[in-house]
Amino acid sequence: MKSEHIPKATIGRLAVYIQVLENLLRDGNEVISSERLARACSVNSSQIRKDLAYFGEFGVRGVGYYVQELITSIKQSLGIDRLWKCALIGVGNMGSALLRHHDFEKRGFKICAAFDCDPDKIGLEFEGMEIVCPTHLKEQAPELNLEIGIIATPPDRAQRAANHLVEANIRGIINFAPSRINVPKHIPVEYVDFFDHLYSIAFQITLGND
Amino acid sequence: MKSEHIPKATIGRLAVYIQVLENLLRDGNEVISSERLARACSVNSSQIRKDLAYFGEFGVRGVGYYVQELITSIKQSLGIDRLWKCALIGVGNMGSALLRHHDFEKRGFKICAAFDCDPDKIGLEFEGMEIVCPTHLKEQAPELNLEIGIIATPPDRAQRAANHLVEANIRGIINFAPSRINVPKHIPVEYVDFFDHLYSIAFQITLGND
Repeated sequence: MKSEHIPKATIGRLAVYIQVLENLLRDGNEVISSERLARACSVNSSQIRKDLAYFGEFGVRGVGYYVQELITSIKQSLGIDRLWKCALIGVGNMGSALLRHHDFEKRGFKICAAFDCDPDKIGLEFEGMEIVCPTHLKEQAPELNLEIGIIATPPDRAQRAANHLVEANIRGIINFAPSRINVPKHIPVEYVDFFDHLYSIAFQITLGND
Repeated sequence: MKSEHIPKATIGRLAVYIQVLENLLRDGNEVISSERLARACSVNSSQIRKDLAYFGEFGVRGVGYYVQELITSIKQSLGIDRLWKCALIGVGNMGSALLRHHDFEKRGFKICAAFDCDPDKIGLEFEGMEIVCPTHLKEQAPELNLEIGIIATPPDRAQRAANHLVEANIRGIINFAPSRINVPKHIPVEYVDFFDHLYSIAFQITLGND
């Protein structure tokens, strides 16, 4: 597998393929043609073939793809064929929505600990978890085997949250806070900002008017 | 302006530039060098220069960028120098978090109407808005001048929500539901799925282990 060279755009599309394939499986489809899969994913079929080629040989001529097999292979390749334990920092509006989100565990991720520095929140129970002060992250991370940190603090607290995660030897970070963070190079960081999608829509509408 | 040809990756980075520039302005910075801006945005300075060149001539040699001017120009170019009125369909976990989100209006978007087909939710007041049945979208959209639709329904309801938005002549759609939707080609659609970021982190951690 030459997966080190997989472009980021392919990873993004793989998430779409998994989503579509799992919906297909739920609806009872065991096999799907590459044309139908392409249509369902809103990409062209040569793109799908190219993306999947990074992970091995898939598809049977005249038949198509075996849905379950394809899901399993993509998940294995991405490293999401197991459960990743996550720590959430920031139990505000967005953090609470993430804690209540039902898809996490189904999709290979589990928020196992929730942290917030607000004294009014510390000690409260939320979705069966006690909210803890982030200073305890360092001792809880190895106990609970926490690997991924999710930051959902206000922007001015994001760096402090990142520092706690780094100190706790967390291996990767998703940042929902609208501000950049600095962490050592070996820790991958992903920023989630849905406003870039809103900007993109506004831009496309504006252009369409020209 | 040759903005029709602006690559999607540039749009994504513009959102980051705006975020960083607005934080700089809030902290009292009126001017910033391209090197410092690049560092703050985690990109290299030639990338920033290239991205900004799509929108005109910026930066003064030996001085850098005027922060407010740059924000204004980027927002103008993207069409976000005005307020976009949005309709939300689906007032569940994620939809509620979006309604409570304080950054929308600050960033040029305002959720002006909230729809849900759940009889237990219709008529309830939420963040000063009455939740309305989506069948009323068609009459409310022109009255309220709704332009962008935000779908935050469960996956199996996303297409129905999209149909309501299309019928109401909405001009663009953001889909938070984890399923694809079909709409006429002239309506731009953006999918927001933060699991592709989780997948990407899991993948990078897994690779780092090899």
